[in-house]
Amino acid sequence: MIEQPKLSALSGQVENLIEWLASYGASEAGGVTRLLYDPSWRSAQRAIESRMAEIGLLPRYDDAGNLFGRMAGRDPEARVVLTGSHVDTVTGGGKYDGAYGIVAALIAAEYLLARYGPPLKPIEVVSLCEEEGSRFPMTYWGSGRITGVKSREETAGLADANGVTFERAMREAGFGFGRHPAPERSDLECFIELHIEQGQILEREGQSIGIVSHIVGQRRYDITVTGESNHAGTTPMRWRRDAMSTAAALISVLMNRANEDGAGLVATVGRMEVKPNVGNVIAREVTFSLDVRHGDAAVIRAFCEECFRAFDVIAAEHGTSVAIRKWMDEPPVAMDEGLGSAAEDILRTAGIPYRSMTSGAGHDSQVFGTFCPTALLFVPSRGGLSHSPAEFTETEDLERGVKLLIDLLHKLAY
Amino acid sequence: MIEQPKLSALSGQVENLIEWLASYGASEAGGVTRLLYDPSWRSAQRAIESRMAEIGLLPRYDDAGNLFGRMAGRDPEARVVLTGSHVDTVTGGGKYDGAYGIVAALIAAEYLLARYGPPLKPIEVVSLCEEEGSRFPMTYWGSGRITGVKSREETAGLADANGVTFERAMREAGFGFGRHPAPERSDLECFIELHIEQGQILEREGQSIGIVSHIVGQRRYDITVTGESNHAGTTPMRWRRDAMSTAAALISVLMNRANEDGAGLVATVGRMEVKPNVGNVIAREVTFSLDVRHGDAAVIRAFCEECFRAFDVIAAEHGTSVAIRKWMDEPPVAMDEGLGSAAEDILRTAGIPYRSMTSGAGHDSQVFGTFCPTALLFVPSRGGLSHSPAEFTETEDLERGVKLLIDLLHKLAY
Repeated sequence: MIEQPKLSALSGQVENLIEWLASYGASEAGGVTRLLYDPSWRSAQRAIESRMAEIGLLPRYDDAGNLFGRMAGRDPEARVVLTGSHVDTVTGGGKYDGAYGIVAALIAAEYLLARYGPPLKPIEVVSLCEEEGSRFPMTYWGSGRITGVKSREETAGLADANGVTFERAMREAGFGFGRHPAPERSDLECFIELHIEQGQILEREGQSIGIVSHIVGQRRYDITVTGESNHAGTTPMRWRRDAMSTAAALISVLMNRANEDGAGLVATVGRMEVKPNVGNVIAREVTFSLDVRHGDAAVIRAFCEECFRAFDVIAAEHGTSVAIRKWMDEPPVAMDEGLGSAAEDILRTAGIPYRSMTSGAGHDSQVFGTFCPTALLFVPSRGGLSHSPAEFTETEDLERGVKLLIDLLHKLAY
Repeated sequence: MIEQPKLSALSGQVENLIEWLASYGASEAGGVTRLLYDPSWRSAQRAIESRMAEIGLLPRYDDAGNLFGRMAGRDPEARVVLTGSHVDTVTGGGKYDGAYGIVAALIAAEYLLARYGPPLKPIEVVSLCEEEGSRFPMTYWGSGRITGVKSREETAGLADANGVTFERAMREAGFGFGRHPAPERSDLECFIELHIEQGQILEREGQSIGIVSHIVGQRRYDITVTGESNHAGTTPMRWRRDAMSTAAALISVLMNRANEDGAGLVATVGRMEVKPNVGNVIAREVTFSLDVRHGDAAVIRAFCEECFRAFDVIAAEHGTSVAIRKWMDEPPVAMDEGLGSAAEDILRTAGIPYRSMTSGAGHDSQVFGTFCPTALLFVPSRGGLSHSPAEFTETEDLERGVKLLIDLLHKLAY
């Protein structure tokens, strides 16, 4: 057990660095926009690079644009303890999503080095180049390249909203030429990511830290109901093949079943397109989205199978047909139990309120999670808000997260 | 009882005239587009004007663009028996909607004049200038002007999709200058409209003629559910305020209640707009249309009251709110019982299968219906299709309608 760093030593520093990083890509409306390889993104990476050097880390990019700051270890054989998060944001995002994990890692590294000197095992702070998929239709580019899950070939044909290709954007930012080391790593011992919850569970329950046990699996579907357009006035109810009426019944099945579940399954229908979408014409076709998530793939499968069986019955009653297209099926990813227990020990000892939880959102940790032991640690998000300028976490919670990261890195690397 | 005109005398004539009128505004795809005052509309009115003159009617426009063909009556005191329908179409409409009523009136007038000479009461064939509201956001301009329900002032500010004002379009077509008589009429004895059903009731039941007792009343609403946007992965079901989930439940209430009704009420949700309409974001706001129709205003009122009470309960359960905006509330309009009985006598004697029914769609007859005794008579529509190039009625049914019109006009005016 190391001597607890005093909260006062960190006081102000987290907030200052959050504001500092948010200044790269800041909009007047208070939001932050740093899209992969764009000028704001580049200036943020350069600023982090300078900061790394200032605090005694050796900065290095890989050829995808991930930025690492290395604290050499005394054991030449030891593998790397990696910590950080992603530097990119959504368009008009907040100051904390991704950024907090990088800032926390920088502060922790600086503190550990100043207080304890070089670690036994090398510690690296990482500013991952991309997680959000906000500029190009691809997510987890940074962690995907490090873990070898994604290859350069997958960017072929990708372009942003302005028609700039992925390849050109990467090269204009100075990457993709082989000037930097290839991204794939084979020397990682573990990955630790500190992140805002982007949900309300910690806040509502008065917890400061969430130790993620699983990142949920998710399935996404487009569900299309096909009926027949007809005149809203002259077609008796009994002869209708109303795609909207069917869709409403199907969505009600999904919502009722999800509400009954009670064990953490979430199901969302967030999008609907209606044809012809005219008030006095019976809908011919309704397509709606379905997003289902849970920590256990079997629960997701059972939910979908049960609901889809009911769909067939309802559609037959309505004289309509239902086509179900699954376009995403990601299994849940377990975080490392040993790292979770280590975090739990620290928090219990420090008397900090925490809970184990699943992450309903995707994170770089789910890519690392099948590659090396990984810990994902949450701090509360006020109102659960994220991907918005209103994103906010109390300073006290930010500092408790940093403190946990310091203790955990010390435990793992010293 | 007049001598029955032989079907063979009409054979081919109805079809020929339907094709003739459809040639004005015909598209290559087989549809017809005659929008108020546009070149196709003008050429159609000119062609009908010529036809009226050829068959011995005296053509005359009013200053709104309604075209009348008058057969003078022997009784100088007698009021006018008016028959016809609207010449305008929707964009890409069929050959029968409106056109059939004009064609049938022309054939009937020609037949009666040739066979029986001048009637006792004047008969006028009318080609009403506008019913559909397809070019400008206003319906029933033709019948509305004749009956005084609509005034010139109501066109102020109206423009078509190209920005052409109603006033300019009217003047370019040669109307609105006071060159023609003012549209309002005070000399009508009755109005008789023959029209395609635009529904499937006659076809499915094997009837040739529908005698309309009422044109349904209709209410239209925009219903807005307001909840809260949130992350689809990180927001447990129990904390959601999901506008889509609520909307699906409300629509299910409407549909279930309408299906239970069994007495001819129809309810349609044909349009939905979702915000933000993103698959992995819980919907903040859903607005959907509601169109409710029935021949009895009290039935519509009871339906809406009952459903809207249920809405409040459901929204409260979901933590959402519901705003209900009524933007149309048209009472049912009764057709004239005497004219209906006269039509029934003719059909019964001729052994033609018919039924009494309500009209779920709006027609010029609903404007005339509160102004003078009015009869609305339907012939079947194949598959109930209308407002489409696929609109079709069997020749035999078209001819039976014309025959009924001939007999009815003879009964009323000779």
